[in-house]
Amino acid sequence: MPQERIRYAPLRDKISDPATAARHVVDGSNLFVSGFSPVGYPKLIPAELAKRAASGERLRFNLYSGASTGDGLDGVLAEAGVVIWRRPYMAAKAMRQRINQGEILFKDDHLSFTSAQVRSGGLGRVDVAVVEALAINEKGHLIPTMSVGNTPTFVRQADKIIIEMSDACPLDLEGIHDIYIPEDPPYRMPIPIYRASDRIGKPYIEMDPHKVVAIVYSQERDHCPLFPPPDRVAHDIAAHILDFVQHEIKAGRLPRGLPWQSGVGDVANAVLLGFLENDFFHGLDLYSEVLQDAVLDLLDLGKVRHASGSALTFSTKGQDRFIKELYRYKEKVVLRPVEISNSPEVIRRLGVLAVNTALEIDIYGHVNSTHLWGRELMNGIGGSGDFVRNAALSFMVTPASGKQERISRIVPMVSHVDHSEHSVDVVVTEHGLVDLRNLAPRQAARAIIDHCAAPAYRDLLSDYLERASRAGGHEPQLLEEAFAFHLRYMQTGDMRPGGVPAAGRQRVD
Amino acid sequence: MPQERIRYAPLRDKISDPATAARHVVDGSNLFVSGFSPVGYPKLIPAELAKRAASGERLRFNLYSGASTGDGLDGVLAEAGVVIWRRPYMAAKAMRQRINQGEILFKDDHLSFTSAQVRSGGLGRVDVAVVEALAINEKGHLIPTMSVGNTPTFVRQADKIIIEMSDACPLDLEGIHDIYIPEDPPYRMPIPIYRASDRIGKPYIEMDPHKVVAIVYSQERDHCPLFPPPDRVAHDIAAHILDFVQHEIKAGRLPRGLPWQSGVGDVANAVLLGFLENDFFHGLDLYSEVLQDAVLDLLDLGKVRHASGSALTFSTKGQDRFIKELYRYKEKVVLRPVEISNSPEVIRRLGVLAVNTALEIDIYGHVNSTHLWGRELMNGIGGSGDFVRNAALSFMVTPASGKQERISRIVPMVSHVDHSEHSVDVVVTEHGLVDLRNLAPRQAARAIIDHCAAPAYRDLLSDYLERASRAGGHEPQLLEEAFAFHLRYMQTGDMRPGGVPAAGRQRVD
Repeated sequence: MPQERIRYAPLRDKISDPATAARHVVDGSNLFVSGFSPVGYPKLIPAELAKRAASGERLRFNLYSGASTGDGLDGVLAEAGVVIWRRPYMAAKAMRQRINQGEILFKDDHLSFTSAQVRSGGLGRVDVAVVEALAINEKGHLIPTMSVGNTPTFVRQADKIIIEMSDACPLDLEGIHDIYIPEDPPYRMPIPIYRASDRIGKPYIEMDPHKVVAIVYSQERDHCPLFPPPDRVAHDIAAHILDFVQHEIKAGRLPRGLPWQSGVGDVANAVLLGFLENDFFHGLDLYSEVLQDAVLDLLDLGKVRHASGSALTFSTKGQDRFIKELYRYKEKVVLRPVEISNSPEVIRRLGVLAVNTALEIDIYGHVNSTHLWGRELMNGIGGSGDFVRNAALSFMVTPASGKQERISRIVPMVSHVDHSEHSVDVVVTEHGLVDLRNLAPRQAARAIIDHCAAPAYRDLLSDYLERASRAGGHEPQLLEEAFAFHLRYMQTGDMRPGGVPAAGRQRVD
Repeated sequence: MPQERIRYAPLRDKISDPATAARHVVDGSNLFVSGFSPVGYPKLIPAELAKRAASGERLRFNLYSGASTGDGLDGVLAEAGVVIWRRPYMAAKAMRQRINQGEILFKDDHLSFTSAQVRSGGLGRVDVAVVEALAINEKGHLIPTMSVGNTPTFVRQADKIIIEMSDACPLDLEGIHDIYIPEDPPYRMPIPIYRASDRIGKPYIEMDPHKVVAIVYSQERDHCPLFPPPDRVAHDIAAHILDFVQHEIKAGRLPRGLPWQSGVGDVANAVLLGFLENDFFHGLDLYSEVLQDAVLDLLDLGKVRHASGSALTFSTKGQDRFIKELYRYKEKVVLRPVEISNSPEVIRRLGVLAVNTALEIDIYGHVNSTHLWGRELMNGIGGSGDFVRNAALSFMVTPASGKQERISRIVPMVSHVDHSEHSVDVVVTEHGLVDLRNLAPRQAARAIIDHCAAPAYRDLLSDYLERASRAGGHEPQLLEEAFAFHLRYMQTGDMRPGGVPAAGRQRVD
């Protein structure tokens, strides 16, 4: 392993092989790993743990991270059957299945809270932290790779630390991170971020080198999916949002210069790409969670001045491009702990414009972003709650329908509420946008049906609204048929009456 | 009117009678009033407006306040049929009825957001602000009475200001208010509160005296209900909370010194009174919204050092007691704008322990605090969302049952979600307390049924949970019968099967 990766000489004695290193994780451990989105997570130790379980060793542990990781961690460990608890978020198919079967315990947390919970001891001892690193500096402190997540707190609280020293990123990445662990109540000072680009901490994670029990050398790269160019639906949703914000700024109701947050996925990416074609927006700041490929284009064209997040989730092509001109990007990009990137205090102060994706939205603006049919976990709430509740303006987006219109994503009542009408400001589908901020519930329902619902569902939804309104109430609902759309789909494979009965129960996945 | 109430001499020319003053409110006006809870709201101008409507004058306007007011405002104006829009919160029976009938438009807002919305122009022009005042100082600035709410922003943004100069409070109240209007994004500094007692603003509301079009003299007192001593249920809920917090502090998972917020109502009051009998807690701080009579006892005994809120909602007896020894209370009590008392930034920084009341809670910890039967507005979300989402620890409390056990307040699925499982930490009824923070949904459901539900409903809820769990999913629900409890009550007047059929649909109110 090159010496410049371990600049603190005493730690060179800790170089080990993955199998030996992984021995520090024992049955019943609390295991805390680096990683936020499928970047920056350890890949070698998980493989060893799975191997041990496959060999018949009794090995079960609790697994905590920054957010989701990749299949090399969540997938491998879920399939190995070694995970008791998983928090705070995941996005791997094998993990999801076992959580839905009740085999893996999961609690769906706001991401901004996990580090504080760990520091308070609320998740138990941090027996072992396994973290991917770019390098260890001269003082024995740790420099992370493409994500920060909860790693600073995990490293601080850990009894033992295992490091996967990765050579997938060049050492020039050093300096991109801004590590700041806030104090905990009741004696806590403000988090001193006043602009999205502000740096308030150190470019490394403070680490007591005596806690490091092993360092393994890794050549594993991160693998993130490359987003295809936005389809028509994503493009139209993005266009509605940009038009609307432009209109609000011109009307004087929204100041220029508010930073943007854009969740993960097609539409979020399309919104960012939409800036490229738009002359009104320039010199933007991003105060977000996960930064994706589109950010590189925006930085290149000067559309975005600064981008702040907790992870750089670039495709392989994006990674190469980023690394090639790192010197240019580094001064414009900052990677923070998730409790800072998602801090309610900072989000409210900066006045973030937040764009997040819904699984379904109801006619009153309640949003389901986590569960299908009220019960099956998709991925989790992630950071959306941190942003939706505290943003200056919160957009919830979804295609109006799915499965060739057999599913309407606008429904009478969502089957699981993650974001309530009180916090959702604007609803957007490819058909249109409704600003809920000055609409009473009956008006909101009328507008969402007329402007956002798929045309094939408007009569059905209108009929529901009219009958519910006759029955009365501030927010008319007929509890006896609020989930009729969902139940019809589960029985026939189509939310519309007269859909062809399916052989069995249908699932969206 | 005594000269010391209007110390800025030019404004003495504006003294008027209520009928003349009220002429500034015309058909189509946006009317913004002082008041937060039934204290500090104007009483004379509303009566005049109602009188004009009763005389056949065409008069309809939009009505905005800090939160609820009293019957002298919301009741009178709702009955007069003059209100088009009402925001952000109300608690008057006549107003509630008309909102539920769709006659008055209402949107249920987080209270911390209204002032910023007004400043951005999102609610339209502030045509007229009608505010109750204690005095106008030498510079022409305004000193409010027993509440602050959104008055500082209303006064700043108003075209015309009408003042009801009240002599119900002594001039010695001056100095209790701490008025600070935060900047608006994107250029906003931190709100510099580090302790519940910190004073960061001025003891008056800055006002341009040229905007004052009329001053009327008022002798109207505020009338707040006196809470009866807590019943057994409230007492037991409070005891569970205090036991739990004590236990968490002793276990080292919760620091000493976190400030408390306690919502409005019996249980909230009982929690505060519980401190009186408890030796563990002393020298507490309250960082709350509405301060009620119990606070006086706590201050007298030194149990509470400092109390911060946006309103002093004392009973008549409490008002007398407070005013009599004002010199003693004034240094321990601070009244703030609601965007500061409810600031997510400050709540998160201080690490508030929040206690709020639910209408119903489901087995997974989702909370309904606003709508009956999914559709009928009770009062609104008020400040609960500001606190629940940002507290260090968020308690949701409810009696386990209502209407002689004909209603279970623990249900399979709440009929309206205001606070989701992601933000609710602890559920409490008189039967027990469940800490949800480390429970997966199926475990949470089991624990809530066993420890919080009324015994008469445990078998019914268990049966539901078991059948739903067999059907699968991370958070098992059977959409076809998720509201069976509610529907049964609406049909028979009892949530249990076999309840006696009622003549018509039942309502809880």
